[in-house]
Amino acid sequence: MAGGVGSRLWPLTGTDKPKQFVDALGTGETMLQSTFHRYAQLCPEEHIIIVTGDSYEQRVREQLPGLKDFQVIGEPMRRGTAPCIALGAATIKRMDPEAIVIVTPSDHAIFGIEQFASDLQQAITTVQQHDWIITLGAQPTRPDTSYGYIQRRDRVDGTQNLYRVVTFTEKPPVEIACQFITSGEFYWNAGIFVWRIDVLERAFREHLPAVAESFFAFEPGDALEPLYSQTESVSVDFGIMEKARNVYVMEASFRWSDVETWTTLYDATPHTAEGNTIIGQGIFAYDTHNSLISIPPGLTAVIEGLDGYIVSATPDTLLICRRQSEEKIFKFSSDVELQKIMQR
Amino acid sequence: MAGGVGSRLWPLTGTDKPKQFVDALGTGETMLQSTFHRYAQLCPEEHIIIVTGDSYEQRVREQLPGLKDFQVIGEPMRRGTAPCIALGAATIKRMDPEAIVIVTPSDHAIFGIEQFASDLQQAITTVQQHDWIITLGAQPTRPDTSYGYIQRRDRVDGTQNLYRVVTFTEKPPVEIACQFITSGEFYWNAGIFVWRIDVLERAFREHLPAVAESFFAFEPGDALEPLYSQTESVSVDFGIMEKARNVYVMEASFRWSDVETWTTLYDATPHTAEGNTIIGQGIFAYDTHNSLISIPPGLTAVIEGLDGYIVSATPDTLLICRRQSEEKIFKFSSDVELQKIMQR
Repeated sequence: MAGGVGSRLWPLTGTDKPKQFVDALGTGETMLQSTFHRYAQLCPEEHIIIVTGDSYEQRVREQLPGLKDFQVIGEPMRRGTAPCIALGAATIKRMDPEAIVIVTPSDHAIFGIEQFASDLQQAITTVQQHDWIITLGAQPTRPDTSYGYIQRRDRVDGTQNLYRVVTFTEKPPVEIACQFITSGEFYWNAGIFVWRIDVLERAFREHLPAVAESFFAFEPGDALEPLYSQTESVSVDFGIMEKARNVYVMEASFRWSDVETWTTLYDATPHTAEGNTIIGQGIFAYDTHNSLISIPPGLTAVIEGLDGYIVSATPDTLLICRRQSEEKIFKFSSDVELQKIMQR
Repeated sequence: MAGGVGSRLWPLTGTDKPKQFVDALGTGETMLQSTFHRYAQLCPEEHIIIVTGDSYEQRVREQLPGLKDFQVIGEPMRRGTAPCIALGAATIKRMDPEAIVIVTPSDHAIFGIEQFASDLQQAITTVQQHDWIITLGAQPTRPDTSYGYIQRRDRVDGTQNLYRVVTFTEKPPVEIACQFITSGEFYWNAGIFVWRIDVLERAFREHLPAVAESFFAFEPGDALEPLYSQTESVSVDFGIMEKARNVYVMEASFRWSDVETWTTLYDATPHTAEGNTIIGQGIFAYDTHNSLISIPPGLTAVIEGLDGYIVSATPDTLLICRRQSEEKIFKFSSDVELQKIMQR
């Protein structure tokens, strides 16, 4: 799934450059490229289907130049994750009616690539034997109110890390999130789902029959526009996961972050001895602490005497602000946009 | 005089971009262009002769595209201001043996363009009638130890602003500079000299006879290399001004700064209500005080929560540091240069 439009890592990301197309972690790859290469360990590259907004199709193909035509599907409008997954699944089903499907966002960070591969292998093996939906649950490290939480029940016999799911809770209030963390029964919902194609289709037909009806009948060459304009907008979490009885959560042995804000990016990344997150080459920091510094290739940055700041430079925009002022960044970016509009 | 090589406005200026070729004040013109246009009010443009390093000749012509060939002279090596002035003066003498010469640096800031023109007109009128050397003295506003100071004696009868000169003092210790300021008898040496060409030549022949001998015999087409390699290195202040008896200082009615460091640039420029110097378009400052922000055209900068900082961005380098740490900038720039060398 590479259709995300919003993000709050401004000015690194923005309306014209969604996070999946940006190298948010300074790895030399965009989030989309990293995600693609992470899964290319698990399956042939041509088994990877990317569903994105139709206006992003070209960008996906530029960032992943080896893709065949059928591997990129452009949605004519945004209808949430459920129609997006149904469309991808219908495509995969035509390729292999016994396929195992992994659904994943393309703009999240995974730390621990070997643990990731091992967890996913285990999930694949499991769903080959069981009609289960496996979701990956990340160990929560703070009561983040922007995440979805998965509550586990008892552990599946014979496993160390697989549990039945009790509830899904999207974006809880902070008191609730604190209780979740303390209880030890909750995971962050990483948005990664592993299921056989027949289990997936059955789940859609049971819980989202209208979506299943139109999307699984879809044939290559059919126009997507009528399909999407008549489909309800619904997330897979709300539409399926919260309702299905066969959902299991696998405790991820890797670290995960959606890196959706500067705070989550800062928390997710390794820090220097001074507590800095350094993203990019050519950063010279002196007497600088607890700060996140992100600069593009080719820029040199000398930073002295900052404590607790975000410094993000792009080729056309520079942001310097206190980490504690992160919530104001939306206002800042709006002010900048407004001025640009007024100057036209 | 446009031969300066050093400057401490890094990263705005540097070894590859001396201050005269940079728009340090965000006016839309480089310091050289501003200086040229300031004097083009006083005389025809083709009366302006620019002496620079021979490696800078091309850059001068790019920044001032209307110049005729003879208007730019490239010195093959640096020998201080005295040989530079002698060479320019010899050129001017051939054009007009009765010329009035104004000597000026090309990388200083003048605030008050009308006062400037009026002062200079008065100086020109004065030296038409007197065999005097007139230096422009700027009102000192702080005990700056990087400036030259001119001590005045009694005022010339019939003038409001013209004084005999007692002493020139280059870069005094801070205690002495404080005494200078308190006494009220001292001006900053703006490095601008007004004199008739015959007075100028006589001063050189009297105080720097070897320089006069070789440079006033210079004919167009002669090689400059032998001339410069045999000439002593000497400043006009030390070689002539400190020795001549006919030097007068005119109290400038404009504000002047050599804008040689971020501190002098900050002090010289107007401040916002929050005490910020804003150089460049597209700067959005929030809760930011007592800071100097300098960004190039095309960049947008959002700055929040800084107090007492220098932020200077160029297309390839970003500096953020406390104003109080300005003396460390040379180390920072050296660290950057060293790393670039090591990476080659």
